[in-house]
Amino acid sequence: MNIYEKLQNSVKKNNSLVCVGLDPDVTKIPQFLRQDGDNALFEFNKAIIDTTANMVCAFKPNSAFYEAYGVDGIWQLRMTTMYLKEQYPDIVIILDAKRGDIGSTNEGYVRFAYDYLGVDAITLQPYLGKESLKPFLEREDKAAIILCRTSNPGAGEFQDLKTDGESLYKKIAKNVVAWNTHNNCMLVTGATYPQELAEIRSIVGDMPLLVPGVGAQGGDINKIMKSGLDSHKSGLIINSSRGVIYASDGEDFADAAKREVITLRDEINKYRTVKL
Amino acid sequence: MNIYEKLQNSVKKNNSLVCVGLDPDVTKIPQFLRQDGDNALFEFNKAIIDTTANMVCAFKPNSAFYEAYGVDGIWQLRMTTMYLKEQYPDIVIILDAKRGDIGSTNEGYVRFAYDYLGVDAITLQPYLGKESLKPFLEREDKAAIILCRTSNPGAGEFQDLKTDGESLYKKIAKNVVAWNTHNNCMLVTGATYPQELAEIRSIVGDMPLLVPGVGAQGGDINKIMKSGLDSHKSGLIINSSRGVIYASDGEDFADAAKREVITLRDEINKYRTVKL
Repeated sequence: MNIYEKLQNSVKKNNSLVCVGLDPDVTKIPQFLRQDGDNALFEFNKAIIDTTANMVCAFKPNSAFYEAYGVDGIWQLRMTTMYLKEQYPDIVIILDAKRGDIGSTNEGYVRFAYDYLGVDAITLQPYLGKESLKPFLEREDKAAIILCRTSNPGAGEFQDLKTDGESLYKKIAKNVVAWNTHNNCMLVTGATYPQELAEIRSIVGDMPLLVPGVGAQGGDINKIMKSGLDSHKSGLIINSSRGVIYASDGEDFADAAKREVITLRDEINKYRTVKL
Repeated sequence: MNIYEKLQNSVKKNNSLVCVGLDPDVTKIPQFLRQDGDNALFEFNKAIIDTTANMVCAFKPNSAFYEAYGVDGIWQLRMTTMYLKEQYPDIVIILDAKRGDIGSTNEGYVRFAYDYLGVDAITLQPYLGKESLKPFLEREDKAAIILCRTSNPGAGEFQDLKTDGESLYKKIAKNVVAWNTHNNCMLVTGATYPQELAEIRSIVGDMPLLVPGVGAQGGDINKIMKSGLDSHKSGLIINSSRGVIYASDGEDFADAAKREVITLRDEINKYRTVKL
């Protein structure tokens, strides 16, 4: 199945543009899970997945949070993606890994993401250009989600540089539109920059956009929705990580996460039913 | 110890600017190692390390080649870096991972590279800017090696874009000079673009440059040496991966690798002793 179709189906099924970022940190997860020892990251993720899977369109584990624990962390990342695939096969799994090497080396990352972990999408760096990303771009069943405008405070250092009169991030958006012959490209556009999000939307038409930076990073739903929806009042994957997964540090953490997701989903959906 | 010092010491100790890229691929390593089964990637690396460690300044495993095999691959990457640290502590270990996320997430990659694997350096993407890379930049004992001009055929798509009249890769080189308050920054400049290498050298003074793309990718030693040496006829880390590690696919692979490294080292050193 083409990945755009899979995303549309998951959005429709759960009537949700919410993505939950599965970024567990042993020092922040509830005390009782830490004491249990083995596979605490997976157990934390599993509890949150089970309470929220019917109200999101995607889950997004960030590889860095697992690599921090070496093979033990990577193994729990795989347990998490395998669990998702088995229990919730309709939900899109995005590996947030921000990879990008020369073409022949990218084959290794393709195997890690798509064969070993079995995810549906990976985030990628644009700096080496289309030619290098071919191993990702030629997979129409998987999404290549290219960094365009990131959510961090210092994002503008290079992304805002003017090239032929337009910002680098806009040039990247335009090029990715041209790369998208398999309908499998998406862009990362941080929630913390709604004006840039609007400009990117005007360039890419209905291409889906992954929008991190809601919650802990301070992105504003009202501004995102007014800037980013596509022509079908959809086309956004709005990610919250810390705001959801650390909503409570007690035994009720998964229920607290669920409440946060419901609030976020409903707030987002208000803008999808009314005329903006 | 500051990482520039460690690099200078290893260059001096072995009188070499050669870096061997440890990028093992199960389908390419000698048949008898594959049949032995367990830890074939590590055994392959170990044999090459043992024959070449006294004639290189650095080893550079690329993370993608290990991630391709999941936790089994990552474990053998760690076996490789631990073996290097124990047996050859003076040689610089560069993790070629081309990472780059927002600042708080980069802490995970710092733990993977510096705590779990114990390497001396990591390659990084510039696109998110200095602010995001702070967790790497503040470690003066470790090198942050920023992608500047990559070796792939399509590198120019974004890297050659003109920003305020100069190419993006030059702007990045200039900014990294300003970031380098701890004397721990280096740049990646592909061997396949000697003209760009010369321009980068003129911008960065004596900053060390990691130069991949010799051998299989076609970089020319003569051009690299005329373009890239610093004011002390040093300052280059010249990497060959496939050209060294697959010099033979028989039982003599490690000796064949050694012969390739000697040839490469000696060819490079000719330009370090004569007036160019």
